[in-house]
Amino acid sequence: MIESVNVIGSGRVGSAVAARLSGRGVALSDADPDVVLLCVPDTAIADIARGQTPARGWIGHVSGATPLAALEPHERRFSLHPLQTFDRSGDPSQLDGAWAAATGETQEALAVARELAELLGLRVFELADSDRTLYHAGAVFASNYVVTLQRAAVRLGVPADALVPLMQRTIANGFELTGPIARGDWATVEAHKRALHERRPELEHLYETLAGATALLA
Amino acid sequence: MIESVNVIGSGRVGSAVAARLSGRGVALSDADPDVVLLCVPDTAIADIARGQTPARGWIGHVSGATPLAALEPHERRFSLHPLQTFDRSGDPSQLDGAWAAATGETQEALAVARELAELLGLRVFELADSDRTLYHAGAVFASNYVVTLQRAAVRLGVPADALVPLMQRTIANGFELTGPIARGDWATVEAHKRALHERRPELEHLYETLAGATALLA
Repeated sequence: MIESVNVIGSGRVGSAVAARLSGRGVALSDADPDVVLLCVPDTAIADIARGQTPARGWIGHVSGATPLAALEPHERRFSLHPLQTFDRSGDPSQLDGAWAAATGETQEALAVARELAELLGLRVFELADSDRTLYHAGAVFASNYVVTLQRAAVRLGVPADALVPLMQRTIANGFELTGPIARGDWATVEAHKRALHERRPELEHLYETLAGATALLA
Repeated sequence: MIESVNVIGSGRVGSAVAARLSGRGVALSDADPDVVLLCVPDTAIADIARGQTPARGWIGHVSGATPLAALEPHERRFSLHPLQTFDRSGDPSQLDGAWAAATGETQEALAVARELAELLGLRVFELADSDRTLYHAGAVFASNYVVTLQRAAVRLGVPADALVPLMQRTIANGFELTGPIARGDWATVEAHKRALHERRPELEHLYETLAGATALLA
């Protein structure tokens, strides 16, 4: 049972995680804790992990992109990646409703990750360490690149406020594809390309690449 | 004042629009209505407009991509494009909270479009006819291509259920860019590219193109 966690790092994720654990009565202790949880930049994980003295407890990280091997030499290790985008507020409610990818090499390690997720209010799915990089690229598509699409739409003259209900309903409707490509309305697609070519050439290739991917993934 | 509308077309948009107007006490009449509103496929607009006998009223369409000239020979014309994705239910609540682009060549035409929007429960912004194609390409980025990103993420191993809270919060956080590109973490970006190249080569070019656009639009 996890009764004490040493949360290392107080960035976007670490601050929310520490606040949630504290709110659930878990001791935030660096003296022989049940779990050392690294909430530090990916590039710092290996160094900080090596610097931890071996203890009876577990060590984990919250990185989507980093393999478990970064936690060497520790063997009682896991990772738990909250699939969420966090602001800098440290507000633990940001964890509510989110899912997290749990990775471990033993059933015991996965059980620790699951218990920590439950304490944090995260729903869990299992992720194989060997699938991690591909999974994390998927998270970039679904979060960072959504930001890119929004910025492209604003650059093309759609008011930012007006985009919010459109994007929300696209999600609420279960990602059903509508619009010209779904209708096979290639005249409209060609008109878009011409207009982009003339007035926003920097977005023409992006539009075309996405049109191709839309057809591929439909 | 708009007291009667002839809604032509009963597809995704037309069915929701007719239900909303009816619910607001507007007569759905084809006998000399105040407004003839074409909710038909883009390619049918010009033909159906030409077939309407000139009357005292106004004629409009709800297409994002189609210029006002498609409503010739009518001069009392406008367009009102609901910036929303609709399912086939005809449920008028789909209009709630959405915005719409109003286009007209006179103040009187714009006033008709605004009055219709208010009846429908849509918030309005003005759109110049000459900016329409670019605007509509923007709407495709923000709706259809969001579907494409979700499908790409699922193909890369992210559970579909887990994507919903991530994408919702990306919107709720005001489209703040987080993740490896925002951090300048090019090692992770390169790792994503290698993993895609090896295991999902069909998505490698899409990933790279979006990475470039993310940097461009940041």
